[in-house]
Amino acid sequence: MKQKSTRPFLLLSNDDGYQARGLQFLIEVLSPVADLLVVAPDGPRSGNACKITCDLPIRLRLVTHRRGLSVYACTGTPVDCVKLAINRLLKGRVPDLVIGGINHGDNASVNTHYSATMGIATEAALQGYPAVAFSLCDLRPDADFEPLRPYIVDLMFKAISIGMPPLTCLNINFPVAERFLGVKVCRMGQCRWENEFVQRSDPRGAGPYYWLVGESRNLEPEAEDTDRWALSHGYISIVPTTLDCTAYGLLEPLQKVL
Amino acid sequence: MKQKSTRPFLLLSNDDGYQARGLQFLIEVLSPVADLLVVAPDGPRSGNACKITCDLPIRLRLVTHRRGLSVYACTGTPVDCVKLAINRLLKGRVPDLVIGGINHGDNASVNTHYSATMGIATEAALQGYPAVAFSLCDLRPDADFEPLRPYIVDLMFKAISIGMPPLTCLNINFPVAERFLGVKVCRMGQCRWENEFVQRSDPRGAGPYYWLVGESRNLEPEAEDTDRWALSHGYISIVPTTLDCTAYGLLEPLQKVL
Repeated sequence: MKQKSTRPFLLLSNDDGYQARGLQFLIEVLSPVADLLVVAPDGPRSGNACKITCDLPIRLRLVTHRRGLSVYACTGTPVDCVKLAINRLLKGRVPDLVIGGINHGDNASVNTHYSATMGIATEAALQGYPAVAFSLCDLRPDADFEPLRPYIVDLMFKAISIGMPPLTCLNINFPVAERFLGVKVCRMGQCRWENEFVQRSDPRGAGPYYWLVGESRNLEPEAEDTDRWALSHGYISIVPTTLDCTAYGLLEPLQKVL
Repeated sequence: MKQKSTRPFLLLSNDDGYQARGLQFLIEVLSPVADLLVVAPDGPRSGNACKITCDLPIRLRLVTHRRGLSVYACTGTPVDCVKLAINRLLKGRVPDLVIGGINHGDNASVNTHYSATMGIATEAALQGYPAVAFSLCDLRPDADFEPLRPYIVDLMFKAISIGMPPLTCLNINFPVAERFLGVKVCRMGQCRWENEFVQRSDPRGAGPYYWLVGESRNLEPEAEDTDRWALSHGYISIVPTTLDCTAYGLLEPLQKVL
């Protein structure tokens, strides 16, 4: 009797585009141990959150196809990529895990809400698949992903073996470091973005315009159970994330006043 | 001694654009009882979720300015609108409530994640302001908002007086009906989108393209405590929504295995 293959099948996407180093590194590290279907945007989609494309047609282009690895570039958002993969490309094959990333930049704390890397994990979990988002807290296109190498395969296998409950996924962030102090399971910390715009003046005289930038302020810097604390102290942060947004504690009080 | 004004100050935005009927109806209903600052996209941004604009400059244009009402059109996303309003337009004035909507279309259940109307409420709550999203489950540009009229002012005042806890907001959906059976406080129901793409062939021979459409399947049609149940039975649904995405029940089990 043939033994079930232990080589997992993974669906990968990202929000920096299929050519980004973070995704290429992920493919390099995972392809020796897993079959990969990669469906990623054809260019940068940072800050796209769970955006879906309602107003434009979406195209898919096969850019790499060899044994155990197919890569598609997609004109849509990261969530569109996951939806297209599930609806059109899986053809009945069930991924053992869906992975978003590795993102160039921090997706911890409130950034969870803006992150399209987390959008990928969110969409996958909504569709019933276990999912993980990997992010390195370094925005630069040439960020050094090498220190993550020993952790990626290990965390991928663990994420599969855990058997995540429905409507949950993992948000995993790596601090910028040559070596990490360890892995910490955390809650999502509370931060607030401030001073978010730089105003410039149009050289053609069309008035001011604004660039979204800003500074993130940690609202609970002493809280050692948060992802923000873990990251600023050299740990990899893992936040188990739920997609059920109900504030259960408010159901009863609201029923009384509404 | 002068009595404190009971006329609230509200920040409004939407994702269908500043000219959309849902927002115009909201302005019409609220302007007799409140001062309004409206900062809304210059065109449709449906499905933009919490998208922020990182790769383009953003512009603001004042389109209406009279006593108690200012309306700005913005080239960015709904979340950009809220950020710009808070950072550049409030000038120290604190809104009593931030309102997203009234959206043309259903933002209940998992649509919460794709909704930019909820993106508005999310961003406001992350910035520390009480916030509400109003949606009518009717996508049409000429949807009939008239049945909502008696509820909007009432719910606005209630949302202010409740004093919502940090990191929470209200997701309020109206079914399509001439009259509603009442208001129900609900949890977010579980649905799944299926058959999400229509494939077409490019008339210029550039291969297939896809339109995102799909059908939403209710995964728990018998659950009377969900927003989906309330809406399909003629009730207005109110889901208290948390922006803390931590799956608290998973913290301990994960700590054991990771």
